[in-house]
Amino acid sequence: MTLTQQDAIAFDAADPLAPFRERFVIGDEPIAYLDGNSLGRLPKATAARLRDFIDHEWGARLIRGWEEKWVELPTSVGDLLGRELLGAAAGQTVIADSTSVNLYKILHAAAGVRPDRKEIVVDDTNFPTDRYLVESVAAERGLTVRWISPELVENVTPALLDSVLGPQTAIVLLSQVDYRSGTLLDLAGLTAQIQAAGAVVIWDLSHSVGVLPIDLDAAGVDFAVGCTYKYVNAGPGAPAFLYVAERHLAQARQPITGWWSVADMFAMSGDYEPAASIRKMLSGTANVLGIVSVEEGVKLLAEAGIEAIRAKSIALTEFEISLVDQWSGSSAQTLVTPRDSSLRGGHVTVRTPQARAIADHLIANGIIPDFRNPDMIRLGLSPLTTSFAEVWAAYETARSFGYSS
Amino acid sequence: MTLTQQDAIAFDAADPLAPFRERFVIGDEPIAYLDGNSLGRLPKATAARLRDFIDHEWGARLIRGWEEKWVELPTSVGDLLGRELLGAAAGQTVIADSTSVNLYKILHAAAGVRPDRKEIVVDDTNFPTDRYLVESVAAERGLTVRWISPELVENVTPALLDSVLGPQTAIVLLSQVDYRSGTLLDLAGLTAQIQAAGAVVIWDLSHSVGVLPIDLDAAGVDFAVGCTYKYVNAGPGAPAFLYVAERHLAQARQPITGWWSVADMFAMSGDYEPAASIRKMLSGTANVLGIVSVEEGVKLLAEAGIEAIRAKSIALTEFEISLVDQWSGSSAQTLVTPRDSSLRGGHVTVRTPQARAIADHLIANGIIPDFRNPDMIRLGLSPLTTSFAEVWAAYETARSFGYSS
Repeated sequence: MTLTQQDAIAFDAADPLAPFRERFVIGDEPIAYLDGNSLGRLPKATAARLRDFIDHEWGARLIRGWEEKWVELPTSVGDLLGRELLGAAAGQTVIADSTSVNLYKILHAAAGVRPDRKEIVVDDTNFPTDRYLVESVAAERGLTVRWISPELVENVTPALLDSVLGPQTAIVLLSQVDYRSGTLLDLAGLTAQIQAAGAVVIWDLSHSVGVLPIDLDAAGVDFAVGCTYKYVNAGPGAPAFLYVAERHLAQARQPITGWWSVADMFAMSGDYEPAASIRKMLSGTANVLGIVSVEEGVKLLAEAGIEAIRAKSIALTEFEISLVDQWSGSSAQTLVTPRDSSLRGGHVTVRTPQARAIADHLIANGIIPDFRNPDMIRLGLSPLTTSFAEVWAAYETARSFGYSS
Repeated sequence: MTLTQQDAIAFDAADPLAPFRERFVIGDEPIAYLDGNSLGRLPKATAARLRDFIDHEWGARLIRGWEEKWVELPTSVGDLLGRELLGAAAGQTVIADSTSVNLYKILHAAAGVRPDRKEIVVDDTNFPTDRYLVESVAAERGLTVRWISPELVENVTPALLDSVLGPQTAIVLLSQVDYRSGTLLDLAGLTAQIQAAGAVVIWDLSHSVGVLPIDLDAAGVDFAVGCTYKYVNAGPGAPAFLYVAERHLAQARQPITGWWSVADMFAMSGDYEPAASIRKMLSGTANVLGIVSVEEGVKLLAEAGIEAIRAKSIALTEFEISLVDQWSGSSAQTLVTPRDSSLRGGHVTVRTPQARAIADHLIANGIIPDFRNPDMIRLGLSPLTTSFAEVWAAYETARSFGYSS
C-alpha cells in the first residue's frame, strides 16, 4: 500500500499529542525540523520562564536568590527529572555540568565499587565522548579498556557482552539508544546480565531520555548520565544529569571536589567532607539559567505523559520507515534502524553513499535532517513537536533529489 | 575630618563612571547592594541579548546555530575576555564549565609541566574549592600538598613563599585577591619568584577579574582560572574561564576528554586526538546562554575601561575604609583589608564578633552585605554599579545597629 500526503494529514488529525506542537516556538521555516533529537525546539514556557527569571530573580533578588531557592535547584530539578523521566526515587539525580563532565565523575565513582577488578567494557561504536572518557579514566586508575565491536544495527547483544564479561570486569558503559542507528538496548536485561557477572553498569541515556519510558530503580541500574538539550528541549548547552543508585551513594567518590560537593558549603571549612547526599557529585556553582530551562522541559514532557510520547514516537518512526522503504525502491540506501519498534528509540537512520549530497539537498529546500559522518542521514522525530506532515515534507523533498538506482 | 552624606553626593557627581549605573537593572530595593563581588547586577544589555538569543537564535536557527556561530563561542568570547580583562593574546583563553571544573583541568595540565617534581603549594586560607581540588589532584597524581599558612591581612608574602619553594615544587596555586580579606597579591613578582624556583604558577582570578587590570602575558603567567558572575556580571552560575600560556599548549593534557576537546569534533573518529589549540581544554557541549552573558558583561567592562574601573574601585574602597574607621571609633571591629590601595582588590572586609547580628540588621534595613563565617562582613564594591550613596547608606544603617564599644 502506497502512503500519500493524505495519510500524514490523517495521522496528525488523530494524534492526541498534536496540541503540544503549539506549546513550542515554531516559525515558517524550517519547513521540517528533523533534528529535535540533537537540539530540541524552544518551548514557549521556557522562553517566558527565562524572561521572568532574568528580570525578577537574577535582576531583582540578586544574591538573595541563592539562599531562597537556587542552591537547591540541582537536586530539586534532579528529583523532578528522575521521577518523571528516569523512574528514579528522590535523592539519586542531580542536574549539573555537561554530560562529559558527569560521565567523568560517574566513571570514577563506578571504579570505586569493584577496586579489585581491572577492566572497563565499552563498545567501539559508542559516542566519542563515552569512548574517550573511558580511555582517560582507565589510564588514570590503572584499568584496562576491553573493547567490544557490535554490528551497527544490532548494537550490544547479550551474546556479545557474554563474550567479554568475566572476573576482571569492573564496569560496563552502554548507551541505551545508539546515537547513529537508533537501536534501543534492553536496559533491564543487560543490567541484570552485567550485575550477575559482578560488575556495575553505567547507562548513557542521552538519546533515550524524554522519548521513552525509563525505569532505573526497577531495573536496579547502578549509574546513569544523560543530556537535556535533545528530547528534554532545554536549549543549547543546557546542563546534563547524573544518577547514582541510593545503595552506592555512601561509598561514591568523585575527584572534582569543588565547594558545591561538600556537606556544608557555606562553612568553608578546612577539611574536605563530602555531602552525604547526591550533592557529593556536584562540583562548582550551578548553572541556574540552564537548570531552570531543564525544569520547564521536564514539566512539559510530564504533562504530555511519557507513555503517550512513546506511542507517538513509535508511530512517527513507523511512518518514517515506511516512507524510506517507499522512497528506496531499488536504490542503494539502507535502513540501519531496527524495524522492530521495541528495538528502536526516537530516530531513524538511513545509510547511503550520497548521504552528504542528499542532506544538502534537504537543507537547501528547508528540511533539516542530521548528517552523520561519513554516510548516514539521521531523522530525529521529537514526539511533542514533530508532525507527520513534517515527515511527509522530508520524504517529498528527498524524492525530488532524483536519487538514481 | 568627618565624612558626611554630602561627601557621598559630591563623589557620585564627580564620578566619570556614574552613567554606567543606568546600564544595569536597578530597582527600588535593595537600598544598597554591596555584594556585586559575589553576584553582579544584571546588565540591561544582557537581558536584551538573552531575550534576542532565545527567540531568534535558539528558537529560530535551532541546530543551525551550532555551525553558524555557537561552536566558536568558547574561544571567541574567551579571546575577548582575555584581551579586555586578562592581558592575554588570542588563543590562550576559553569560557567553559565552572571554576571548579576548570581548576581541576588546569591542575592536571600544570602537573604535566614538571613531572619530576612532587609538591603542590597552596595556602590554607585559599577558597575552599581551591584547597579541596589541590588535595584531590595531588592524591590522583601521587603528589604532596605543601600547605602554607599566611596571615589573613598580608596573605602570601614573598618571604612565606620562599620558605617552601624548593627543588620539589611543581606547582603553586594562588588567588590574586583573597576572597575574605581582599588582599591583592603581586602577580608579576610572585610569578617570577615561583618560576625562578623552577615551578609553574596557577592564578585564581575569581576575585580580581573585571575590577583591576591584569596582564597575564606580560607577567609570563603559566595558567589561570576565574569566574564570571562577580565583577563580570554574567549571572548566577555563568561559565568560568581558563587560561593556558601559549608555550604550554602543545604539552598540556587534561583528563576530561569530552568530544569538544578533540581536533575535529564532528569527525567522531575512533582515536582520541586532542585539539592543537586551546580547545583541547574543553570537555562537553558549551553552555551557550551562559557564554552569551559573559560576552555582554565583558563588553560593558571594556567600554568603561579597566583603568577607569580600577580608579573608581580604589575611590570606593577608600571611602568605605574611612567610614569603617569613622564608625568603629573605640569599638571592636577590625579592618582586615589592607589600607594601602595598591595591596587590595575591590572589596573591604571588617571583622567583628557581632558580624552575624550586624549583617542581619543591614539586611533587615534593605542593605545587602556579604557575611563570611564566622565573624566577617564583606562589603563588595562593584565600580560600574556601586554608588558612593550606597556606601553611605550602608554606613548609616550600620551606625543605627547601636554597636556598643
